[in-house]
Amino acid sequence: MPAPVVFGPVAFEESPFMKACRCLPSDTVPVWFMRQAGRALPEYRQVRGEGSILDAIAEPELAAEITLQPVRRYGVDAAILFSDIVVPLAAIDVGVDVTPGHGPVVADPFRGPEDLRRLRALEPEEDIPHVLETVRILVGELSVPLIGFAGAPFTVASYLVEGGPSRTWARTKALMHSEPGWWGRLMDGLAELALAFLRAQVEAGASAVQLFDSWAGALSPDDYRQHVLPASRRVLEGIADLGVPRIHFGVGTGELLTMMGEAGADVVGVDWRVPLGEARRRVGGRAVQGNLDPVMCLAPLEVVEAEARRVLAQAGGLPGHIFNLGHGVMPETDPGVLTRVAELVHAEGRAEAAPGGSP
Amino acid sequence: MPAPVVFGPVAFEESPFMKACRCLPSDTVPVWFMRQAGRALPEYRQVRGEGSILDAIAEPELAAEITLQPVRRYGVDAAILFSDIVVPLAAIDVGVDVTPGHGPVVADPFRGPEDLRRLRALEPEEDIPHVLETVRILVGELSVPLIGFAGAPFTVASYLVEGGPSRTWARTKALMHSEPGWWGRLMDGLAELALAFLRAQVEAGASAVQLFDSWAGALSPDDYRQHVLPASRRVLEGIADLGVPRIHFGVGTGELLTMMGEAGADVVGVDWRVPLGEARRRVGGRAVQGNLDPVMCLAPLEVVEAEARRVLAQAGGLPGHIFNLGHGVMPETDPGVLTRVAELVHAEGRAEAAPGGSP
Repeated sequence: MPAPVVFGPVAFEESPFMKACRCLPSDTVPVWFMRQAGRALPEYRQVRGEGSILDAIAEPELAAEITLQPVRRYGVDAAILFSDIVVPLAAIDVGVDVTPGHGPVVADPFRGPEDLRRLRALEPEEDIPHVLETVRILVGELSVPLIGFAGAPFTVASYLVEGGPSRTWARTKALMHSEPGWWGRLMDGLAELALAFLRAQVEAGASAVQLFDSWAGALSPDDYRQHVLPASRRVLEGIADLGVPRIHFGVGTGELLTMMGEAGADVVGVDWRVPLGEARRRVGGRAVQGNLDPVMCLAPLEVVEAEARRVLAQAGGLPGHIFNLGHGVMPETDPGVLTRVAELVHAEGRAEAAPGGSP
Repeated sequence: MPAPVVFGPVAFEESPFMKACRCLPSDTVPVWFMRQAGRALPEYRQVRGEGSILDAIAEPELAAEITLQPVRRYGVDAAILFSDIVVPLAAIDVGVDVTPGHGPVVADPFRGPEDLRRLRALEPEEDIPHVLETVRILVGELSVPLIGFAGAPFTVASYLVEGGPSRTWARTKALMHSEPGWWGRLMDGLAELALAFLRAQVEAGASAVQLFDSWAGALSPDDYRQHVLPASRRVLEGIADLGVPRIHFGVGTGELLTMMGEAGADVVGVDWRVPLGEARRRVGGRAVQGNLDPVMCLAPLEVVEAEARRVLAQAGGLPGHIFNLGHGVMPETDPGVLTRVAELVHAEGRAEAAPGGSP
């Protein structure tokens, strides 16, 4: 492996990723993959072993190595910190773990307003020193921008309320309607947690952040607007002063894209259900990120290539597109396919200024 | 139980359900619930016992009784035949069963074009006499229109290709892209099957049909247009001559609603993710059906009532709205809640002609 070229944070402003986040023209369309640091990589499986992801995250050298693996392998334009949306909850001892192959599990789910006492302010230097150390190691190693991330209040709340992954979010939806008072306080508490978590990652050296509201697409637009948007805005606007690009992502969010942008995002992540041209219209002047269906990466290579070209075509060759999948890399993906996608995007993507001015 | 009033098929044209399907003004907004005949009802659990749903469907007296139960209990404006989307597949011996609590399972999934030989034309009088007998019994018993139904080619194909329920539809998506030739023939074969199944139900006395493309919302609009829409159109346009309303439904189909209407539907079913006012715009002059989130029916009654009123408000009080859930009744739903929803819709729903003419 050649020694990576080290840029400082300012230098990254000239990187294709940062330019795309800011809707600036660039020589190439940047690309990274959600869950690029993960089980699809043999080198990941080799260093990770079994056990909770939280144990691996707690080891800065290991977490940094896992973060670097996909940058080396795929030649992507951004690294995303190897972490998990429940890290801040675990750090304040809410009682959460991540079961391999299943997801976050909360031993004692939130059932009433008295559970709000289990949330307290995150003190990053005391509560998550290992995460900050990982970021600092990476800033010294990476030749591309580092994306920090947090779970959005709704998605994190859904795990606390349901006790684990859900396909219906029945308790969560009932709660926001029947107990809007304590739901609101729960969301406020989780917004503060996400905000502190993101600020700490940026202050340690992350160049951008992504707020994952993975399951927001389960909600009606009215529910999202009333019961979710205010807390997400509190997070995203709360880091506006840091000046780093803010990406906001969820699955199945076609009807929510406009609001997700208005929550204070610079970039809105889009799954494969909305063509990027239409997504651009919904998010106004913001950048878009996406939107190759990760399932397509299990199809023959010529299918993947055709789909990647379709994404580029629908993005329209204008600035403000970060190529990505529409959801995380599936564990059974052949890493060679993602390498080829990154090559194709770099070779064929265009991000030129629109004739006559800005896009 | 009072003896039901028996109308003939012609009389049903004056029913609120049929008027709504045809976008005609009516005194009341009609309501029925997808999966209204099912596990939420104690009387259903009592008569059904354990075992495959296919065994129960094969007993006309039992299937008719189960179809009638929710009409008696909830006072809904339509009955839906107690049946399953895999009935025609089972009837031509494809080798499919329905595992309780899990869904359709295909013992020997379709893996190559040679499997197309396993599809043959449905001969309703020979292959599904029990279904036709159930319909005939119901036509003599029901005081409301009977909806027949079939699975749309894509959703049925997904079970054949995946071998059972899926959360990713990875094989199915790969197949339509990598083997468009045999995918197309598979879809054609399944379209013929659905068409024959629906025609037979209507000829036996069903007043309307619903084509369930439950999982179409997993697809990008491009994939839907190219690989799915032609087969669905073949089904819906293939029964146009029968003159019965055709309802077309799927989950998460916000980006597909316009195409689902153009496939030949009179009514487009909508889940809770798209407000009905917006859905009306997307489906042009067609009627809409929906869209209370079924999960909300597990919330306290005042929440359910508020949500039902929101649905009515978003439908705009114009003709061409059939109140329904946005997906099937959840098994743990309190039947009393659905009774209350039906009452509320009947008492508060309005379906008046728009000022100045048709909607």
